[in-house]
Amino acid sequence: MSSSPKQLAKQDPEYKSTKSSIDGKVYFSYADIHDTMSSLVPQIKEFNPSVIIAIGGGGFIPARMLRTELNIPILAVSLELYDDTNNTARPTVKKIQWFDEQSEVGSKVRNHKILIVDEVDDTRTTLQYCVEEVIKTNNPSDIAIAVVHNKLKEKRGKLPDNVIYMAGANVDDHWNCYPWDAAAYGNTIREHESLANKCSKKKE
Amino acid sequence: MSSSPKQLAKQDPEYKSTKSSIDGKVYFSYADIHDTMSSLVPQIKEFNPSVIIAIGGGGFIPARMLRTELNIPILAVSLELYDDTNNTARPTVKKIQWFDEQSEVGSKVRNHKILIVDEVDDTRTTLQYCVEEVIKTNNPSDIAIAVVHNKLKEKRGKLPDNVIYMAGANVDDHWNCYPWDAAAYGNTIREHESLANKCSKKKE
Repeated sequence: MSSSPKQLAKQDPEYKSTKSSIDGKVYFSYADIHDTMSSLVPQIKEFNPSVIIAIGGGGFIPARMLRTELNIPILAVSLELYDDTNNTARPTVKKIQWFDEQSEVGSKVRNHKILIVDEVDDTRTTLQYCVEEVIKTNNPSDIAIAVVHNKLKEKRGKLPDNVIYMAGANVDDHWNCYPWDAAAYGNTIREHESLANKCSKKKE
Repeated sequence: MSSSPKQLAKQDPEYKSTKSSIDGKVYFSYADIHDTMSSLVPQIKEFNPSVIIAIGGGGFIPARMLRTELNIPILAVSLELYDDTNNTARPTVKKIQWFDEQSEVGSKVRNHKILIVDEVDDTRTTLQYCVEEVIKTNNPSDIAIAVVHNKLKEKRGKLPDNVIYMAGANVDDHWNCYPWDAAAYGNTIREHESLANKCSKKKE
């Protein structure tokens, strides 16, 4: 019953983010992210998942943004990626937190449709690991992925053909600055939101 | 070594939110929430927790907002509150997701300082349950709580005296509209943010 990844994918260039960069960085406001996630809701409802698996920490906020409209529970998992850039082999992913398959919500994964949510699909390694792990441990009937942004670049990770892939927007391989990381760039949230606003306006 | 709840508590009326209501509802923007959580960072750093326990779904976003500045891992838990309003007895709380105490991050709870994060302290029941559960299962050395908002009302839940309590702001017992719930009020995120802006300006 799964659609092929192409059917629901926002891979068309028309879905490319129209934000501009400032000194090589593209700033996204919380409303930008929320808007982008909301744009995926009709497609996600069509898929009709039973549960969201949020990949933490980046997936927590987009997943919670989706939950009000989808009205399904969130299971949180945390994965840590050890990427040795000198090593062309597959990077190591470590399970920091997983979910209890015996719990009420955990039992909604096996033989059910699930939606995996993360912030950005960069190398695709974490997504591949998460998909493989959930198939191995809980074998859902169908898997869809919803990311805020898909970086237009070659991917190291591979996804099975029957996984439905949705990206809120395709983005260039720039430095994306997300609002929850504002402090990492030395900005208060108000400064960050103002920069995000400038990035939106430049192309208008 | 724990401070008493009073020491670090933002219970002083000076920390009361200055937002106004529109038709009985107070709208908070994402930047409002982020700002409010950032204001707690110096006190949280003083406490120096090893790990954040985010109570989902409401705690996921505030916890992720804090993480960039605190640079400590998040463990996600989900609790569901069954509140029988005809029943004055303690409502039932159900564990939807907990964490694996044997995992690397799970092991940072026992005998460590932990920070529990949630969106709003309303009846305090969920917080009480979470604190009791974490003491029972993982006995941390010290517990602090950080909520975005503390509703100024009588609380059904009780917290142990040695729990450090921090609220980003005290708020009246109004209907608080959080940005992640925008769709629940029939608003897009842009409409919600505009209403939040109006609630901020009315008292200026």
